[in-house]
Amino acid sequence: MRIGVLTSGGDCPGLNAVIRSVVHRAGALGDEVIGFHDGWRGLLECDWRPLDHDAVAGILAQGGTVLGSSRVQPAHLRDGVERARAHLADLGLDAVVPIGGEGTLKAAKLLSDAGLPLVGVPKTIDNDIAATDVTFGFDTAVGVATDALDRLKTTAESHQRVLIVEVMGRHTGWIALHSGMAAGAHAVLVPERPFDVAEVAERVGARFDAGKRFAIVVVAEGAKPLPGTMKYEDGERDIYGHERFSGVARQLSLELEDRLGKEARPVILGHVQRGGTPTAYDRVLATRFGREAVEAVHRGEFGRMTALRGTEIVMVPLADAVATLKTVPAARYEECETVV
Amino acid sequence: MRIGVLTSGGDCPGLNAVIRSVVHRAGALGDEVIGFHDGWRGLLECDWRPLDHDAVAGILAQGGTVLGSSRVQPAHLRDGVERARAHLADLGLDAVVPIGGEGTLKAAKLLSDAGLPLVGVPKTIDNDIAATDVTFGFDTAVGVATDALDRLKTTAESHQRVLIVEVMGRHTGWIALHSGMAAGAHAVLVPERPFDVAEVAERVGARFDAGKRFAIVVVAEGAKPLPGTMKYEDGERDIYGHERFSGVARQLSLELEDRLGKEARPVILGHVQRGGTPTAYDRVLATRFGREAVEAVHRGEFGRMTALRGTEIVMVPLADAVATLKTVPAARYEECETVV
Amino acid sequence: MRIGVLTSGGDCPGLNAVIRSVVHRAGALGDEVIGFHDGWRGLLECDWRPLDHDAVAGILAQGGTVLGSSRVQPAHLRDGVERARAHLADLGLDAVVPIGGEGTLKAAKLLSDAGLPLVGVPKTIDNDIAATDVTFGFDTAVGVATDALDRLKTTAESHQRVLIVEVMGRHTGWIALHSGMAAGAHAVLVPERPFDVAEVAERVGARFDAGKRFAIVVVAEGAKPLPGTMKYEDGERDIYGHERFSGVARQLSLELEDRLGKEARPVILGHVQRGGTPTAYDRVLATRFGREAVEAVHRGEFGRMTALRGTEIVMVPLADAVATLKTVPAARYEECETVV
Amino acid sequence: MRIGVLTSGGDCPGLNAVIRSVVHRAGALGDEVIGFHDGWRGLLECDWRPLDHDAVAGILAQGGTVLGSSRVQPAHLRDGVERARAHLADLGLDAVVPIGGEGTLKAAKLLSDAGLPLVGVPKTIDNDIAATDVTFGFDTAVGVATDALDRLKTTAESHQRVLIVEVMGRHTGWIALHSGMAAGAHAVLVPERPFDVAEVAERVGARFDAGKRFAIVVVAEGAKPLPGTMKYEDGERDIYGHERFSGVARQLSLELEDRLGKEARPVILGHVQRGGTPTAYDRVLATRFGREAVEAVHRGEFGRMTALRGTEIVMVPLADAVATLKTVPAARYEECETVV
Repeated sequence: MRIGVLTSGGDCPGLNAVIRSVVHRAGALGDEVIGFHDGWRGLLECDWRPLDHDAVAGILAQGGTVLGSSRVQPAHLRDGVERARAHLADLGLDAVVPIGGEGTLKAAKLLSDAGLPLVGVPKTIDNDIAATDVTFGFDTAVGVATDALDRLKTTAESHQRVLIVEVMGRHTGWIALHSGMAAGAHAVLVPERPFDVAEVAERVGARFDAGKRFAIVVVAEGAKPLPGTMKYEDGERDIYGHERFSGVARQLSLELEDRLGKEARPVILGHVQRGGTPTAYDRVLATRFGREAVEAVHRGEFGRMTALRGTEIVMVPLADAVATLKTVPAARYEECETVV
Repeated sequence: MRIGVLTSGGDCPGLNAVIRSVVHRAGALGDEVIGFHDGWRGLLECDWRPLDHDAVAGILAQGGTVLGSSRVQPAHLRDGVERARAHLADLGLDAVVPIGGEGTLKAAKLLSDAGLPLVGVPKTIDNDIAATDVTFGFDTAVGVATDALDRLKTTAESHQRVLIVEVMGRHTGWIALHSGMAAGAHAVLVPERPFDVAEVAERVGARFDAGKRFAIVVVAEGAKPLPGTMKYEDGERDIYGHERFSGVARQLSLELEDRLGKEARPVILGHVQRGGTPTAYDRVLATRFGREAVEAVHRGEFGRMTALRGTEIVMVPLADAVATLKTVPAARYEECETVV
Repeated sequence: MRIGVLTSGGDCPGLNAVIRSVVHRAGALGDEVIGFHDGWRGLLECDWRPLDHDAVAGILAQGGTVLGSSRVQPAHLRDGVERARAHLADLGLDAVVPIGGEGTLKAAKLLSDAGLPLVGVPKTIDNDIAATDVTFGFDTAVGVATDALDRLKTTAESHQRVLIVEVMGRHTGWIALHSGMAAGAHAVLVPERPFDVAEVAERVGARFDAGKRFAIVVVAEGAKPLPGTMKYEDGERDIYGHERFSGVARQLSLELEDRLGKEARPVILGHVQRGGTPTAYDRVLATRFGREAVEAVHRGEFGRMTALRGTEIVMVPLADAVATLKTVPAARYEECETVV
Repeated sequence: MRIGVLTSGGDCPGLNAVIRSVVHRAGALGDEVIGFHDGWRGLLECDWRPLDHDAVAGILAQGGTVLGSSRVQPAHLRDGVERARAHLADLGLDAVVPIGGEGTLKAAKLLSDAGLPLVGVPKTIDNDIAATDVTFGFDTAVGVATDALDRLKTTAESHQRVLIVEVMGRHTGWIALHSGMAAGAHAVLVPERPFDVAEVAERVGARFDAGKRFAIVVVAEGAKPLPGTMKYEDGERDIYGHERFSGVARQLSLELEDRLGKEARPVILGHVQRGGTPTAYDRVLATRFGREAVEAVHRGEFGRMTALRGTEIVMVPLADAVATLKTVPAARYEECETVV
């Protein structure tokens, strides 16, 4: 058989581990693998290179993707269905394995619905893809955030401050939930549950009243206050009219400083959460996903993606994966809230 | 309510996270918690101290156990059932939460069968407890082993050697399987599947024939050769008549050196796998276990232990947990073998 | 003898290692040690506790300071000289060992000039104290920044972006210089050398022209553009009139985006650089400093501080330490520039 | 100009950083660089490849050496002087930069004395090369050993054991000294000072008498007991007549167990200390060495090697570097002993 593989969307630790695993497993079965460059672009423009054992030597522990990536543009892709089909035929490909997040999987579904033989591999540090217990990249992101929180604790204590630490998670609070729980943050704020700033201030204030000298608040970048509860307006525009430098951690630090009379400082962890060497957990998961994708190709099980359920790797319909975002359920949030 | 907690058995990253979580959750519910010193000994000798928020401050990320531990002696415990019952009554305890491995859980079952109100929390770096998808400590152990393997790769290559890396796992090969997969080891040997040394040599030799300059073999300490296949006798006795310094990695390195004509060296990772700061993954799991143990006490759900199933924390009978050892299934081993 | 110790100023990995070392060395010599709480405040208000072996058990690898800290207020201290003298007499102290940065050492000099028996220990993550080759805390800060840069590289590449990474260093560029060199940043900007934004853009642009897909610029927080060379005004005021959220990385990312037509993003590492477990290097240096401080007390060598010169720990006058800031010399900057 | 570079001897973190730095600096000066394969072998057999910017992209943080290495055989080299001279002429090389340890530098001196234009770069994790304050690789090795010791502490305590941790250092105790000091080991044994096992037992025993529950002894692999003081004979031969599996940690654990009646276990860290990603400190030092080697070539300063003195990179005669081994001075050992 001949299998194409591509990576699409933002950086995510474990992408190379999937690529390597696809190549190793395919190689063992006598298949050939080619890699498209820069995600869907490579498929649409027929830009690729062959991938053999040597091509993937030493990449298992490397962050990034040796194939390059690009953000998916679904419209562009829609117009490209026939081009993609033609390239598959030209290249003699029996299947394509796109590795990517929600956008990529939607695109995969679109092509799959058009009859192309696709097997998806889900990828997101945000852990927000439904139909799988967890995605690779998430454990690494949580680990990086937790390491940072561990370090920030001694600094917050030394300076007798409140630190508001913004972690990734525009739509879901999984990274905030897990890193906050792992590091023992004193409050965790997630997009799924608009927060009441007065409550946050009260909780933090109670700590200081009890004689503690610092507090750590973990906030997902997409967490929002209950409407009308914040004194400082939504800081979405900066002085240059740009949107990107503001953020909830900044607002919140101003609010808490005002309300508590304690120094509060925002720390925005940013991109560091999505790059670099994957944890062992993510490498194992990525490797298992890559292998199973090849198995699925051999079984002709198209229009599906790999997923983790308990300790098993299973195949689930792409439709299930993209139907809804996997958000933090109330029970998990309350569980966290009651032990911090 | 009044709850006693104890830790028993070998070191395992996450023990303190469970203790802290029990104290936090119990505190939020208005309960009191006491900690018995040195595992079951503390219960039998009524040696304990109160545990409040301050007593568990800062321990979440610490390895070891602030309560101390000791190896369980079931016979000793059997004689001590009535003493334990009396101490529970004297101390006004509504429940005891023992945190430990197979031996501890067996002891817990024994006491539970005698009518004592126990809720177990499983603990083992080996991941060999049935009835839970995974135990805390395992992810940290795999992470430590994987970091070591990552480092050893460059050294093996630089010296053009075969390195035989012995990881923990006397009865099961979970750490070997996961760290070997995470680090891309070239062979993984586990207790569940006696190995043919000729096959291992062939696999490693094929790598050198293909022009590679090194190989890494990961072997669980409990892995055994097929009878009669090793030239070097079982090295269980050293020159002083002691057992403990020998081991499979050492035997294997002698065999491979003989068969391949390449330098082979054993590396025994040892205790470093079971100590120190837990990973974020293990801290989250340990925290969730601790919280659920308190919930179970409140529900009067005794004779059971906390377990992870998929993404959920559930309660399972202690009997299920100790009935069989959770070994590496053939499918998982083959999955690993086909991607290395 | 009886020795007082205090820590003052911002968080710095290694403070606890110094405290422990002072206690261990003093204990071996039959001395007693007391620790003042919260830096100079403890001395002025006579707020302290005894420090013996048990009090410092397990703190060697911990970030922060078990004694607490506070920012020094020299004026306050000036008025407090006689109070400090009285407390020393009351407590029967033969010497005080203040551990701190430039401000603390200036305060120490003031008290020393007034005749108080002081032995200083220099501390700063910024490495800007003259008269010592290096200070503890610096190696840890550089390590944290380098780890972050390693991770950011794969992300920058994956997103085909320029990342402008702001590291600590308000007055000197040591952290930027070392972390930039360690991580292979493509430009390093320091306070000692105002930068020409056109030059930076040209250097980064040349990388893209040569087919590279990303660039990393490391900038010390105190780096400044040559006057009049930036299109975007100095962003020191945010929309709320606060100063602290703006910064050079933000300005620079706007400028580079404009000039290059590439996505550029600021990443501000922030407080994470100054907290948490010290590196082995910093623990050794801190331990050697603490020991030598006690030796100096025994030699009656007051008004001086510990310093590293080559591989030796020596004593230097406090006056030398606070006379000038140790800035990055031109030769070191050029050395860096020519290998990136 | 045209410069050859080669790496020789055992694995050492930072080798690739030197190679990259040589290529970058040479490139900036308009020079060409070639890399010989597998150390001196490559020079003698004229086996090499060109090294440009792309050839060294991404290797700064990688362990091992992209050029390969081999153990130096001085006799072989002596016969090869004329061949080496001829190859230099054939290749039009103006200089060769060998990167290696004591053996390599001796070989370099031999060739240099024969008139070949050589500039050495010292390399050893053992830090035993005279004429430089420190060598790259050492900081990484100490860091790895310290991380392991940190982890082992909680395990030793949990199991109430003495752990005897053997670190690298056949002839000198630098790694033992620094990692032992960084981790707060309770005894540190080095080759420079034969140990009295009764004294070690007494020191460890005193800890237990004082109520402590564990002890960590760090021992360099080359540390030796005072003659006639050990009950167990030198374990240099194992049951197969091999030498390599025995060692001082093993002997010592048997002795301490006998004398103290406490469980004692050896842990041999082994090869993990010399592989993998270098620390930021080592990357900076390696980069500075590489750059200075190129500068020295341009200055025609042959027969010398790069060295660190304080904060400066200087050139020193190869003769100085190989004249004596840099051992741990008594003052440093006593300094360590008095704070543990």
